[in-house]
Amino acid sequence: MKRIIRVNARTGKITEQTATPEEQRIGGRHFIAHILNTEVPPTCEPLGRKNKFIISMGLFADTGVSTAGQLSIGGKSPLTGGVKESNTGGFAGKRITNLGIKAIIVEDLPDENVTQVLYISRHKMELIKMPELKGELVSQTFLILRERFGSKVGLICIGPAGEMKMHAAGVASVDDSGIQVRYAGRGGLGALLGSKGIKAIVINDDEQMKTDFYDPILLKETVKKIAIALLEDPKSKNRKLYGTLDIMDMANTVGLVPTRNFSVGTYEACKEMTGPKFSDMVKERGGSGRSGTPCVPGCTIQCSNVFPYKNGEKVVASLQYESLALLGPNLDIPNLETIGELNHLCNEVGVDTIEIGAALGVAMEAGVYPFGDEEGAKDMIRQIGKGTFLGRILGQGAAFTGQAFGIRRVPVVKGQAMPAYDPRALKGNGVTYATSPMGADHTAGNAFETIRTNDPLGTANQVYNSRQLQIRAAILDTIGVCLFTRPAFVRYPELLTNLFKAKFGWDISFEETRYLGAEVLDLERKFNEKAGVSEKYRQIPEFMREEPLPPNNEVFDIPQEEMEGIWNIPIRTDVF
Amino acid sequence: MKRIIRVNARTGKITEQTATPEEQRIGGRHFIAHILNTEVPPTCEPLGRKNKFIISMGLFADTGVSTAGQLSIGGKSPLTGGVKESNTGGFAGKRITNLGIKAIIVEDLPDENVTQVLYISRHKMELIKMPELKGELVSQTFLILRERFGSKVGLICIGPAGEMKMHAAGVASVDDSGIQVRYAGRGGLGALLGSKGIKAIVINDDEQMKTDFYDPILLKETVKKIAIALLEDPKSKNRKLYGTLDIMDMANTVGLVPTRNFSVGTYEACKEMTGPKFSDMVKERGGSGRSGTPCVPGCTIQCSNVFPYKNGEKVVASLQYESLALLGPNLDIPNLETIGELNHLCNEVGVDTIEIGAALGVAMEAGVYPFGDEEGAKDMIRQIGKGTFLGRILGQGAAFTGQAFGIRRVPVVKGQAMPAYDPRALKGNGVTYATSPMGADHTAGNAFETIRTNDPLGTANQVYNSRQLQIRAAILDTIGVCLFTRPAFVRYPELLTNLFKAKFGWDISFEETRYLGAEVLDLERKFNEKAGVSEKYRQIPEFMREEPLPPNNEVFDIPQEEMEGIWNIPIRTDVF
Repeated sequence: MKRIIRVNARTGKITEQTATPEEQRIGGRHFIAHILNTEVPPTCEPLGRKNKFIISMGLFADTGVSTAGQLSIGGKSPLTGGVKESNTGGFAGKRITNLGIKAIIVEDLPDENVTQVLYISRHKMELIKMPELKGELVSQTFLILRERFGSKVGLICIGPAGEMKMHAAGVASVDDSGIQVRYAGRGGLGALLGSKGIKAIVINDDEQMKTDFYDPILLKETVKKIAIALLEDPKSKNRKLYGTLDIMDMANTVGLVPTRNFSVGTYEACKEMTGPKFSDMVKERGGSGRSGTPCVPGCTIQCSNVFPYKNGEKVVASLQYESLALLGPNLDIPNLETIGELNHLCNEVGVDTIEIGAALGVAMEAGVYPFGDEEGAKDMIRQIGKGTFLGRILGQGAAFTGQAFGIRRVPVVKGQAMPAYDPRALKGNGVTYATSPMGADHTAGNAFETIRTNDPLGTANQVYNSRQLQIRAAILDTIGVCLFTRPAFVRYPELLTNLFKAKFGWDISFEETRYLGAEVLDLERKFNEKAGVSEKYRQIPEFMREEPLPPNNEVFDIPQEEMEGIWNIPIRTDVF
Repeated sequence: MKRIIRVNARTGKITEQTATPEEQRIGGRHFIAHILNTEVPPTCEPLGRKNKFIISMGLFADTGVSTAGQLSIGGKSPLTGGVKESNTGGFAGKRITNLGIKAIIVEDLPDENVTQVLYISRHKMELIKMPELKGELVSQTFLILRERFGSKVGLICIGPAGEMKMHAAGVASVDDSGIQVRYAGRGGLGALLGSKGIKAIVINDDEQMKTDFYDPILLKETVKKIAIALLEDPKSKNRKLYGTLDIMDMANTVGLVPTRNFSVGTYEACKEMTGPKFSDMVKERGGSGRSGTPCVPGCTIQCSNVFPYKNGEKVVASLQYESLALLGPNLDIPNLETIGELNHLCNEVGVDTIEIGAALGVAMEAGVYPFGDEEGAKDMIRQIGKGTFLGRILGQGAAFTGQAFGIRRVPVVKGQAMPAYDPRALKGNGVTYATSPMGADHTAGNAFETIRTNDPLGTANQVYNSRQLQIRAAILDTIGVCLFTRPAFVRYPELLTNLFKAKFGWDISFEETRYLGAEVLDLERKFNEKAGVSEKYRQIPEFMREEPLPPNNEVFDIPQEEMEGIWNIPIRTDVF
């Protein structure tokens, strides 16, 4: 996993280099931060010649660690204007590592509008013009690609939203069956790929490269121990049984579920959307319905589901907590089928469910359609795909929609919509939203897990906790595993250091892994500072400091100054 | 002129204070920068509770100096996110000074959507609900206000664009006849007033305050000398004869006229739009047509015109160079009547002609309507007024429109559209656009006057010249006179110091007036730095550094680093 592929979108030239020893030491999110800091001018236009679209594999992506097939995708974000790493499952990541590829970097811009596919196999790399894909929805794009390149290739693509350079556009990936569609959704990276004139990336790993590990036996043993630790962990068990909806009950009880454009924190119908109830429904309906399925090959957590209609036909796969909350309660839509359909439409059009859920909430507040209008919500997402004038507003995300309609209640930080944890009811997440170099992003440091140990409505410890959680998230995104593997490392920190030893032969202490996480954040902050999008300038929206959120009737009240001090908080080195 | 009026848009309470001696020393643009720095958090939301809408009179607004009736309007700009001062003629300014009012500051936000009029007379100040004005076009708004308050009141208002909080919305003012409509157009200050729920401001000066001058005789003498100096000046003469179109011939010859969305620098039809030809046409058509009319009472320059149809009916008053270039050549529209109609429509809807001309150019490049489609252009402006989805895109300005349609050729700096001087053919203006705290704004330091003495295509002296021109502009905006009075002070610098002596009794040297200008810029930069919108982060658009502009085929090539050094350039104290 030492190959770095560079694609020039203007000349069509594809070159390859071998990662330097220094580059080999960094992966995933860390590698993206490094490339941005060394090769991309921080103030450049995100959709201009100087920005780069980066796919970067995590340090352990080529190992058998559970969830390690994830892809990190990055670049300067069109949405936030800052550094961006967004990761996703799907089967392409594994195939990229099977070709020994560490990173793919797409540079410059084509001179003309083109619809191209980047094809990569062991001995061939090329940009193939495929005008027949222009404007196609995501499922149809995958279908056409499968027909042409066979069913055993890794596939990544954008929908029409990415082609139209909409800032809410994500990058889709898929499993080999074509059922599980996953997204590197956040930050508008679909627009970045679209700006390069690339509609899809096809990875053919028929011929694979050999992998070389320092201590294959220790690696195998560690991988196994991680798998067992995850299987034993109650959280992982619940995730397999109930998916990410496992947290719905608690989220609704705590009062942090975004409802009617972040104006309330609980929603009656959520009681019918809990993990167990959802899982029972899936089982009862049968047909294509599934719980406990993986999104990357070899994942033992298997939090994905296939949500079916009553007749067993697939609505969407997978329905997750954040998408459900933003497309359901946030739009006053209690109907699970409709929510699933909205999610599916987002997947088809190629947009982030969180960003678009928030944008639709803002549009409903503006009266484009009334809250609760299920057909109206569908129509709005379809219009994004068609690029109507309304679609071109919504497809740019919540902040843009708020500006267009003169709405003040717009739940964004750094131009990016907040995920399904209202910061007035989970103040730790407000800190993460406000300070993370990624903008409002729960995966950058989710304080939900602290709810039982630290009053989510209080201001105490929130900045401290966010600091530690952000470091952990940065480590996981760098080694290239899903956030859901954390219970294994929390319980057995030596598993993390063993991974470094087994794969690379490095004697890295657990403390050093914590410093590694902090270093990634520092690199990202450095880029954002130079880009002018630091937490000093992009703050929690004022309405959240003014409007109390029912039912707790709390405002977000952690002082800006305290949050700006987050980087001075000591790095905890005793826990993961 | 010591009264400072504060209006709380939430409570409706109107209070008054007397300017402190320190406050009395600062006026116009300087006063706005001072209030922003001391009372408005730089990172606040421009349309939120913490921003303030400020009307500020220049230091000599209550004197008889030619053009001194101008209004400075300011606040944190919704469009640029930074400091903003935009000034305009009209008859309201004089009336404000007749009431001894130095500034009007509107604070906070109303709790509900309201349509109010701020009424100010000597003994009465109130917010009057006038729901009948909601959504009305500007001319109709003035008409209704005149019917209610009489024809001898000063009037300021916003159009539907401002009410919808569109970021291209300006603030309109008018003369007593209702013919000359002028705009504080730049920076979206119409949206700021709209956010406060105020549709119009009515100034009744039936009962006036006495003015007190330190040396009335010296003042009278100085005012007279300024008038004579202006009358003698060939530039002023040409402005009276030909209006601002006086520069069209040179602009087109030099190749800086924005054409087809800033893709070319000359336009065939401009040869028929020169000052003399336009003036002849106006004379020939007769009827309501006029050249050489004032926009503020007592102006001796009188650069305004009334542009008539062939039948003598008014198309628009006044047609100016920048509006003409952005709404004509920039849209590939050669027809003067159509350009005048587009200008009139902008005035009616309440948007900045420069921002909207640029936005329409971008939209035409995106294919919303083809270049040259005259009816299409009209339709787009009408849609802004109606708040259709397309209108809500365009009404936010060129940058927003570019993002919505995925267009890279977007002529903006700090989110604000460039006026009619392409910086690739007049590089000094590129420096001003890139470094002025105001964003792309020719009035902040227009290098057009250096064309004969400094190669406009060369990089030499451009940063130096812009520095000196920006200082001069800041002085003029602070003392409250039009940029066109500069010939008087260039020729007779002592007239400037005499003004200070005569009105205030201050012995201020000419050098000190230059430092005053620099101080205003420093204050503004300080605010912008804290708001995160300094020239470090908001730069000349990349396409202007990549695409050569015909016919000179030059790119903008003044290094960013050199421009960032502008503030270290010594202040010239020997010329105005």
